[in-house]
Amino acid sequence: MASESEAQRALQYEQTLMYGRYTQDLGTFAKDEAARLRLQEGDTPRPRRPSELLEYTQGRCAPCRVCALQCQRFLISKVGEDWVFLILLGLVMALVSWAMDFAIATCLQAQKWMYGGLDTNVLLQYMAWVTYPTVLITFSAGFTQILAPQAVGSGIPEMKTILRGVVLKEYLTLKTFVAKVIGLTCALGSGMPLGKEGPFVHIASMCAALLSRFLSLFGGFYENEARNIEMLAAACAVGVGCCFAAPIGGVLFSIEVTSTFFAVRNYWRGFFAATFSAFIFRVLAVWNKDEETITALFKTRFRLDFPFDLQELPAFAVIGIASGFGGALFVYLNRKIVQFMRRQKTINRFLMKKRLLFPALVTLIISTLTFPPGFGQFMAGQLTQKDTLVTLFDNQTWAKQGISDEFEYLGILEAWRHPRSNVFVTLVVFILMKFWMSALATTIPVPCGAFMPVFVIGAAFGRLVGESMAAWFPDGIHTDSNIYRIVPGGYAVVGAAALSGAVTHTVSTAVIVFELTGQISHILPVMIAVILANAVAQSLQPSLYDSIIRIKKLPYLPELGWGHHEKYNVRVEDIMVRDIRYVTLNCKYRDLQQVLHSTKMKNLPLVESAESMILLGSIERTQVGALLSSQLSPQRRLLALRQKVLSEDGHRLSDSSIRFQISTETSSGTPARPALRKPLKPALKRVPSSPADSPPAGSADHSGIALKNLFCANAATEPTEAQGTAHHKAKRVRISIVEEMILGDKMTPAEILEWEEQQLDQLVDFSSAKIDPAPFQLVEHTSLHKTHTIFSLLGLDHAFVTSIGRLVGMVSLKELRKAIEGSLTGKGVKVRPPLASFRDSTASTTEADTTALRQLWDRHQHHHMPREAGPGGDDDDDTPRGQ
Amino acid sequence: MASESEAQRALQYEQTLMYGRYTQDLGTFAKDEAARLRLQEGDTPRPRRPSELLEYTQGRCAPCRVCALQCQRFLISKVGEDWVFLILLGLVMALVSWAMDFAIATCLQAQKWMYGGLDTNVLLQYMAWVTYPTVLITFSAGFTQILAPQAVGSGIPEMKTILRGVVLKEYLTLKTFVAKVIGLTCALGSGMPLGKEGPFVHIASMCAALLSRFLSLFGGFYENEARNIEMLAAACAVGVGCCFAAPIGGVLFSIEVTSTFFAVRNYWRGFFAATFSAFIFRVLAVWNKDEETITALFKTRFRLDFPFDLQELPAFAVIGIASGFGGALFVYLNRKIVQFMRRQKTINRFLMKKRLLFPALVTLIISTLTFPPGFGQFMAGQLTQKDTLVTLFDNQTWAKQGISDEFEYLGILEAWRHPRSNVFVTLVVFILMKFWMSALATTIPVPCGAFMPVFVIGAAFGRLVGESMAAWFPDGIHTDSNIYRIVPGGYAVVGAAALSGAVTHTVSTAVIVFELTGQISHILPVMIAVILANAVAQSLQPSLYDSIIRIKKLPYLPELGWGHHEKYNVRVEDIMVRDIRYVTLNCKYRDLQQVLHSTKMKNLPLVESAESMILLGSIERTQVGALLSSQLSPQRRLLALRQKVLSEDGHRLSDSSIRFQISTETSSGTPARPALRKPLKPALKRVPSSPADSPPAGSADHSGIALKNLFCANAATEPTEAQGTAHHKAKRVRISIVEEMILGDKMTPAEILEWEEQQLDQLVDFSSAKIDPAPFQLVEHTSLHKTHTIFSLLGLDHAFVTSIGRLVGMVSLKELRKAIEGSLTGKGVKVRPPLASFRDSTASTTEADTTALRQLWDRHQHHHMPREAGPGGDDDDDTPRGQ
Repeated sequence: MASESEAQRALQYEQTLMYGRYTQDLGTFAKDEAARLRLQEGDTPRPRRPSELLEYTQGRCAPCRVCALQCQRFLISKVGEDWVFLILLGLVMALVSWAMDFAIATCLQAQKWMYGGLDTNVLLQYMAWVTYPTVLITFSAGFTQILAPQAVGSGIPEMKTILRGVVLKEYLTLKTFVAKVIGLTCALGSGMPLGKEGPFVHIASMCAALLSRFLSLFGGFYENEARNIEMLAAACAVGVGCCFAAPIGGVLFSIEVTSTFFAVRNYWRGFFAATFSAFIFRVLAVWNKDEETITALFKTRFRLDFPFDLQELPAFAVIGIASGFGGALFVYLNRKIVQFMRRQKTINRFLMKKRLLFPALVTLIISTLTFPPGFGQFMAGQLTQKDTLVTLFDNQTWAKQGISDEFEYLGILEAWRHPRSNVFVTLVVFILMKFWMSALATTIPVPCGAFMPVFVIGAAFGRLVGESMAAWFPDGIHTDSNIYRIVPGGYAVVGAAALSGAVTHTVSTAVIVFELTGQISHILPVMIAVILANAVAQSLQPSLYDSIIRIKKLPYLPELGWGHHEKYNVRVEDIMVRDIRYVTLNCKYRDLQQVLHSTKMKNLPLVESAESMILLGSIERTQVGALLSSQLSPQRRLLALRQKVLSEDGHRLSDSSIRFQISTETSSGTPARPALRKPLKPALKRVPSSPADSPPAGSADHSGIALKNLFCANAATEPTEAQGTAHHKAKRVRISIVEEMILGDKMTPAEILEWEEQQLDQLVDFSSAKIDPAPFQLVEHTSLHKTHTIFSLLGLDHAFVTSIGRLVGMVSLKELRKAIEGSLTGKGVKVRPPLASFRDSTASTTEADTTALRQLWDRHQHHHMPREAGPGGDDDDDTPRGQ
Repeated sequence: MASESEAQRALQYEQTLMYGRYTQDLGTFAKDEAARLRLQEGDTPRPRRPSELLEYTQGRCAPCRVCALQCQRFLISKVGEDWVFLILLGLVMALVSWAMDFAIATCLQAQKWMYGGLDTNVLLQYMAWVTYPTVLITFSAGFTQILAPQAVGSGIPEMKTILRGVVLKEYLTLKTFVAKVIGLTCALGSGMPLGKEGPFVHIASMCAALLSRFLSLFGGFYENEARNIEMLAAACAVGVGCCFAAPIGGVLFSIEVTSTFFAVRNYWRGFFAATFSAFIFRVLAVWNKDEETITALFKTRFRLDFPFDLQELPAFAVIGIASGFGGALFVYLNRKIVQFMRRQKTINRFLMKKRLLFPALVTLIISTLTFPPGFGQFMAGQLTQKDTLVTLFDNQTWAKQGISDEFEYLGILEAWRHPRSNVFVTLVVFILMKFWMSALATTIPVPCGAFMPVFVIGAAFGRLVGESMAAWFPDGIHTDSNIYRIVPGGYAVVGAAALSGAVTHTVSTAVIVFELTGQISHILPVMIAVILANAVAQSLQPSLYDSIIRIKKLPYLPELGWGHHEKYNVRVEDIMVRDIRYVTLNCKYRDLQQVLHSTKMKNLPLVESAESMILLGSIERTQVGALLSSQLSPQRRLLALRQKVLSEDGHRLSDSSIRFQISTETSSGTPARPALRKPLKPALKRVPSSPADSPPAGSADHSGIALKNLFCANAATEPTEAQGTAHHKAKRVRISIVEEMILGDKMTPAEILEWEEQQLDQLVDFSSAKIDPAPFQLVEHTSLHKTHTIFSLLGLDHAFVTSIGRLVGMVSLKELRKAIEGSLTGKGVKVRPPLASFRDSTASTTEADTTALRQLWDRHQHHHMPREAGPGGDDDDDTPRGQ
């Protein structure tokens, strides 16, 4: 599968993982290339082409083969269906989720058993309590570090980036899958405040990618990039759905968290797969005799007839607002911890050396503090996350009875009682401690999410408010005949939804709690609290996932927040880069060299000529590099030399073979080597003929693969696989070139220099270059809001700004990001005052257009055809022309 | 507001309502124009410009004015916020919904009271039972017909079209709002099987449009088109949300029903407004003492501990599949009824004359059949829709006790009992009768939806299955210690969700039922049934809304259905129109005339020249017409004549005033008159100088308004208002022109003809024309799937296909629609076999590109600069160039 040499390099996560695949139309080129490759390879069966049947029937055991082929075709026709894929995905994920839950429960049980068995000696107990999670976390961190460092963390930020159209290398491979599953099981088995939701999104996506690769063995359906994105979106829904047995909430949450624009036609996919997955997940529990029938994961039994009083709503609103602040604080704290670790150079250097020390240390601290006979007794330390939630959602009221000591804390509720304090103190301590613990624990480099810990903290906060309300109004607020007591469990549900909504900036946590608890009676309080929490949190901090995206410097586009009106008034002309380098159709190789030196843009615009500036298309930087290096390549030089010699000699030795060599060279695609992305050094320096110095030659034969690698690197295909073969082939080709060179290189360096100077003065032949014939264009008047929409809709990386065919500027993700952030913070990029565009639109803008057109027109008049003015034609010139 | 002359014309619904506003960048032009107009008008207060403060301070009562201005500014800064708008929208819609519910309940109560009071005489009873709804429906039909025929029907199909970016005229006006609200109240008050969901979506959208126009009096925020679309999307959610008190389901349903691509950043808007609206709606019920606290609308009280057995799932799946077929049948039946009415010419002609006869007739039939002492006794005819639902969701089991006569049907349950038959018969009769009744009733031209009737039928079907199961397994299926009886109410919930999901092709009906019943315990059965129902229904029929879109011939783009793989393999080059007319930059007016005659395209591509075919932009057909007619206009002719005379005489009488006249004329925008859209007749015929024959002159002074009218016709602005003033101004201008003509027209028809021929031979001056400088471009290889995505994402109407700047074809909505439908039905447009593009991609496609580029390149070599070939440069020609 993945080439092993990549594993070491992949440690440099931030630098290596970002490869853009932004163009919208190149994907089709990539498909062609992939198809061509498949046809060229020829040894894999191509089952659906009718001509093959004929070939087979001419063979010896023809009937057998025909039969096999027909079976195969039937399989393909079924396997190709989306719903088969989705069912398989749901099934696999349900099994994974259930198996992991089982393993985690066993791990936690083992810890409890150890702790319980050693109750004679507190020290031994402590040792067991602390060592066990430390070992598990350290193992998890080490394991993922060695096998696949991409498995670290939540995975939702990365999936968001991938669904935006960016290819993150090595991110959806089997190795990462294994690392994530095992790492996550160990991490959660340790009892640390970590979640499984984010990682499950990632696991499901990997599962989908692997499954799609597996199914693509049966047919060609799974190679389409657009389809893969659709399937990944469904997979994200499955991930959340089978994690919480919450299909609807899962779909909505995954949409909110990963998408900017959601294709409604994918909706059923997510629902179908998530429902199936949740169903299987819960059926497994029934079959395992854990449950009697399919029910919610954290089932509540609040009364139905009078769930809450209208007058309790202010309390719910308070929970919402407080959760908003809390959520923002959590995101802030989490980011600050990461940044502190990175900035402190001594700490950083030390931790870099001993990678496993930090996880071990954090685990040690947290597990020490939760040690039940120690400080843990004040914060229900002995409860697992699941037990905590079950107790917090409990139907009874603790406080009133707790004070008068009537209420019996049965079973696991016992943990919340402390003989020398009351339940309020326990809850407050729990919330405060868990808050920083969770923020800290989620920075550990193991596969982990933050949703569940935050959810639990929110539930505890809600419970605290609920218990306070119950203590304040012992007989309920309602003053009518019936006495309806306050249900603190309902407050816990509201708090959980609100805080998790605030941290993730989602509204769908509301749906998740309904599905988790199996009760929807608190819908209005939950909705109110979630919306208020979102309003507060969104105005203070980015979401946790966006925060991680920024920390990891993934390519992203910030959202337009709550009602920023100025977005409608800022225009592309305010933010675009006007001074851009371009390639003209009739330029020389020397110009190409100059352009490559002077700019770092990945895509260069191709214009008709410097005067007309009519945009014809865009050409990738690597393509320009390839054009240049192929023009100056030693082989061409040798060929020129040899031909000169040959023409002198009259001999034509092995001409055809050389010709072939060159033809593959000139039609070479984009070399995948990063070396080429650097500005090319003066050609002379590269001449010494050591084999290692000829990377462009190395990329000769595998143009298709390289292209596929660069453009088509969708979730399913393994880039490194292609690269592996590419390297292999490159080596072969290189050897043959070296032979050629030894045969023919008889030029002196001076001659070479002269030859190269000659070559640079030639006009560029673009026929071998891949050109994107329709790059995305904007006009100067497009508003920032619309630009943002188009960029996120189409997943663009850059767009050229044109005015009636003429290139006038360029906007890239960077400018757009600056503009959005600049106007958010009020500084940064220059943003025009809100009414600026209104003010000068009266005169200048339309004029500018007309002028440009006029120029073009005049030029044409003079160049192409002499103006034939009729007798009355002179009148035209009297009319104003907006100049 | 709306000009009254439009009201009559608006009766020709299908023809007049469709005005496209498809371009993506012209909206910004429109904004400029709107801004310019506002600045020009000058008499409305422009509160945010600081210069005004200065002006005011110079007045007499300056302090007062400054204070007022500051207050105003504060108001604006608050009013401009989205959330204020959303709260107002939610509040208004909640009030509307509650008031309408109240009025409907009163109407129904009145009918019941009349029916009850007349129980001595069956005939009188029958008369009362039948007359009352007939009168109400007839009134509703007549009222909407007279006031605003746009109010007829559901409104969801139209909102879907509007949200796609098409402007439907008169669709979001106050008149339509009033007509819809009153018409709907009467229609629902009649007790017919009609729903209020669809109309509520429309009402909420109108409410949002009106509110936004109202708030725009305070500031300039509400004029942006993109923002209006966002607000309309939120309004759709509010409509559903406050209709069912189901905020989450409302948001999801409106997304599924109206959007193709959903902007997640709008998500909170919908949630916020829908939650607020639902909250107020339910709070009103509490304040009105209808309810004790906020609860669900159709609250159920199923047991929580064991909602259903795993072994009941097949029964739920059966409900789902049967509902799928039923839903498809409903859509089919509904469409066939409409088509039958339209096709039968005699019926059609008769109904056209007596518009109110059809509604009255249908109402008569349906109410006769539901007459409780008559046939109605077999189908619970006396129950209102709401009562029916309440009884169907009932907690108890009817069947088992019904057979043994133990069970007492209390209260309204009584209606389901029939002494001489059992509940099964009643249910079957109810389902069958209601099915066709609902399909028929929803074709009545009154404001009505089909969701609720379908929902009720689904519930009855579910109940039927549930009662059968209960009769089959009297003690439940579970064989363990506990006996859990089957809950038929749960089946009713499942059936309701499944059938309504099947008819509307949505999954979110599942969420709606949870919110309606206040219980989520049946989540898995509901989800399974809904998904199965969708799977079946989507493969058989379009959704009800899409079906109506097709019947009404609204501009639409069909969805890509469940997993059509061939979509990925069909390409733009297979479906595009290659033979398109274009305008070149250096063409003559005669060419323009030719182009207008030969094509009906609304947008003409503007290319550099016929040889290069480089696409520079697109120009609207009306613009071309305006250019042509301004060139041939009588005034220009007169001016030419006069100038000739003047230059001969040496006098320069009133030259400047004429010059001015002309300058406004030549810079005239798009004339808004439909007359211009017809191909222009030979110029000679238009010469006779009656004032009515010079429409182009009429559009001289109001170019900005006309442009605004054409481009900016967003939901909030009233096109006819602009047109009204336009007409007014036009008249003024026309008079002055006529004067001019009387003064100067001394040419003979022969001279005029000669002059016009001369004019036609002149080169076109494009400087006064509005050109879209960046029309959307595709390349030949873009897949159908991607094209569909881009068209729906950006709301495109057409796109040009280019190959490295060269125009090679065009794809419009029509071709795309044909391609999708063609490949769906397997006939129609030619669709290539799935692997076609793979097959020839190896050679031809990349070659085509290269060839095109090559040609362009060669041309440039020869035209612009002589090729300077170096000594080794000749080698280039030896390399293959893919020709």
